[in-house]
Amino acid sequence: MNAEIIAVGSELLLGQITNTNAQFMSEHLSELGINVYFHTVVGDNPVRLEEAISIAQQRADLIIFSGGLGPTKDDLTKETIARVLDRSLVTDGVAMASIEAFFASRNRVMTENNRKQALVLENSHVFANHNGMAPGMAVETDTHTYMLFPGPPNELQPMFQFEAKPYLAAKLSDDESIILSHVMHFFGIGESDLEHRIEHILATQTNPTVAPLASAGEVKLRITAKAHTVAEATALNMAMEQQLQQIVGEYQYGINDDTLISKTVELLQRHELTLSVAESLTAGLMQAELADIQGISAVLAGGVVVYNEDVKVEQLGIARETIDTYSVVSGEVAAAMATNVREKFGTCVGVGLTGAAGPEPHGDQPPGTVYIGIDVNGHVETYKLNLHGLRNTVRIRAVKYACHYLMQQLVKNGYNK
Amino acid sequence: MNAEIIAVGSELLLGQITNTNAQFMSEHLSELGINVYFHTVVGDNPVRLEEAISIAQQRADLIIFSGGLGPTKDDLTKETIARVLDRSLVTDGVAMASIEAFFASRNRVMTENNRKQALVLENSHVFANHNGMAPGMAVETDTHTYMLFPGPPNELQPMFQFEAKPYLAAKLSDDESIILSHVMHFFGIGESDLEHRIEHILATQTNPTVAPLASAGEVKLRITAKAHTVAEATALNMAMEQQLQQIVGEYQYGINDDTLISKTVELLQRHELTLSVAESLTAGLMQAELADIQGISAVLAGGVVVYNEDVKVEQLGIARETIDTYSVVSGEVAAAMATNVREKFGTCVGVGLTGAAGPEPHGDQPPGTVYIGIDVNGHVETYKLNLHGLRNTVRIRAVKYACHYLMQQLVKNGYNK
Repeated sequence: MNAEIIAVGSELLLGQITNTNAQFMSEHLSELGINVYFHTVVGDNPVRLEEAISIAQQRADLIIFSGGLGPTKDDLTKETIARVLDRSLVTDGVAMASIEAFFASRNRVMTENNRKQALVLENSHVFANHNGMAPGMAVETDTHTYMLFPGPPNELQPMFQFEAKPYLAAKLSDDESIILSHVMHFFGIGESDLEHRIEHILATQTNPTVAPLASAGEVKLRITAKAHTVAEATALNMAMEQQLQQIVGEYQYGINDDTLISKTVELLQRHELTLSVAESLTAGLMQAELADIQGISAVLAGGVVVYNEDVKVEQLGIARETIDTYSVVSGEVAAAMATNVREKFGTCVGVGLTGAAGPEPHGDQPPGTVYIGIDVNGHVETYKLNLHGLRNTVRIRAVKYACHYLMQQLVKNGYNK
Repeated sequence: MNAEIIAVGSELLLGQITNTNAQFMSEHLSELGINVYFHTVVGDNPVRLEEAISIAQQRADLIIFSGGLGPTKDDLTKETIARVLDRSLVTDGVAMASIEAFFASRNRVMTENNRKQALVLENSHVFANHNGMAPGMAVETDTHTYMLFPGPPNELQPMFQFEAKPYLAAKLSDDESIILSHVMHFFGIGESDLEHRIEHILATQTNPTVAPLASAGEVKLRITAKAHTVAEATALNMAMEQQLQQIVGEYQYGINDDTLISKTVELLQRHELTLSVAESLTAGLMQAELADIQGISAVLAGGVVVYNEDVKVEQLGIARETIDTYSVVSGEVAAAMATNVREKFGTCVGVGLTGAAGPEPHGDQPPGTVYIGIDVNGHVETYKLNLHGLRNTVRIRAVKYACHYLMQQLVKNGYNK
């Protein structure tokens, strides 16, 4: 099955937003073995959209649309496709009910134009929108499958992954050759270093292929096998994963959807350990990311954000002498933060983060200097980092390193992975 | 002048990377008043690339390519365009010299395939690559302008901005009008409601145009004027902004690059107010976002993350009776959190956030129920929200509402904007 993704929205052509939806859907389509041959972006213009549709009809049998399902006049994807396919638009009762409920729950009056959002193409398979109002849908004709999704990524992504992807998987006949991807996640090794170590594999591998991908201080290896059955493809990927692990396995922390945060929480949960965090430069970022994981409340008691010096002393009982002697950006302060928050919150594990996020240096400490303290049942270790990048990049990477070192310390203290 | 951007690269169609180049170039092209009508992404496939080129030739007079200029066999953008335009490829001496210098500087032997990178279309205007090896180029025919750029954003972006953009600006004749955009940010009003109120303007406006854009609980209005001078365009935008303010001004919080967080910090800074935050469901997210703003340390003292019930009692002194009587997800607890954190940290302002992020309800409180407490010098207000969406969406929106209500309370307490 060959697909084309058509994103509808003038804001994309004006460069106001990036077409992340196409990337997200393409990744999932390639996992299904569906070849995506073209991405198209077209503005909120019915004539040009029709033009794009007729071109796509000639070169794809699955045509996926994102955007243009909203209540405003600019939103004309459904209307244009209805015209092209000569189908009428009908109100979907379930969608209408959920839109009315949406407004009722906000004690707001629903304006007329919102009814438009409940319109779907007749005889279409409707995908519910659990994060917004406009539903998605799939329409089958003799020649093509058309799928429509709302533009906001937080609405499109779960709808595509959990409703549309199974719908497509069911459509795929068995003789369809399968493309299956498997991702290995690495931390603590640079992209070029990792590539260098597996050069011989990268050079010779054809099936499965191995593609390195670097992002925000992490490196991924995407292993992609082509086969006739899922079992066959899985076996090819697994064999390659083992081969790679023998070379760079020490740096691997997870696979597929794993993140440093999710693996850290997993390890803490497995050993029923509780955690508290004291954050300075990251100012709550680590706790916020931890709390994005369901069921975290059994692990994360909480913590403090001690953004200025006095607060570190008054709220966390960091000795003024420690700060004066070693400076507030020091291993000693990071260690004290970890221990004091652990004792204060009565948890098994305490983490302390202090540093200079930048752009200004902190005293003689250049921006990007970060100290992390880890206290596991009273056993304290501290780490120093020299990170590069913008203020926010430094803070994001500091949290990743904190997870990385925390897992190291847990293992070192007998809490095995 | 109408443009189409064609990105060449199978990694885009596999969803391994996002097409940020199209966004970057589109933004700069719109500043030049060049209309971008289509983005296309095509794989490393000469047949499909030729197909995409012939389609673009019919609908654009400026065709911009990104990617496929590298040394590998997959890189075939130049070769394909040479064939389509029936032009030969010639070695560019300057490019060749810089490629040789690149290898020399790294004491590495230059492999043959790298010579390929110095090839350019005959009679083309060459753009030097200061961040890589493959040069960019512009080719003029009687009917079209073709521009080629390397795929890596760190190579394409400076090349496009500092070499290609001036090249294009020079091409634009004086009678070409300039386009200037101005963005108004709104919060606390839905997209459809806002659009409904300014319907008559949206229906009749042609210059400047007014386009609504919704994202993550906010609504923007992009006002875009066409004129012969910047002054003229600015005046048109300003007049429209005032007209819109008379109708929906009460919901506007900022313009252009403003965010709810940045405006909140601005207001606190102007009145030299200090802030502390007690977070439950958001678990540090509000403080983390505040801390992303430079110079925040004068405003944000810090705060606590009180993720479980005991911690709320022990660390923040919330009365157990209050929790037992009203539940931990209640206005009473949110208010107590705001007041207690303010007193504990000795700040002027305290904010408390508690709620059920979901997916499970909290007792009889459905997921998405959020209470926000705001304490300004002892004057406390609480707010209840019913938010929809995934766990993380709820938390992100809760922080936006906290900023929104905090600014309201500051103004109400005499700290004017």
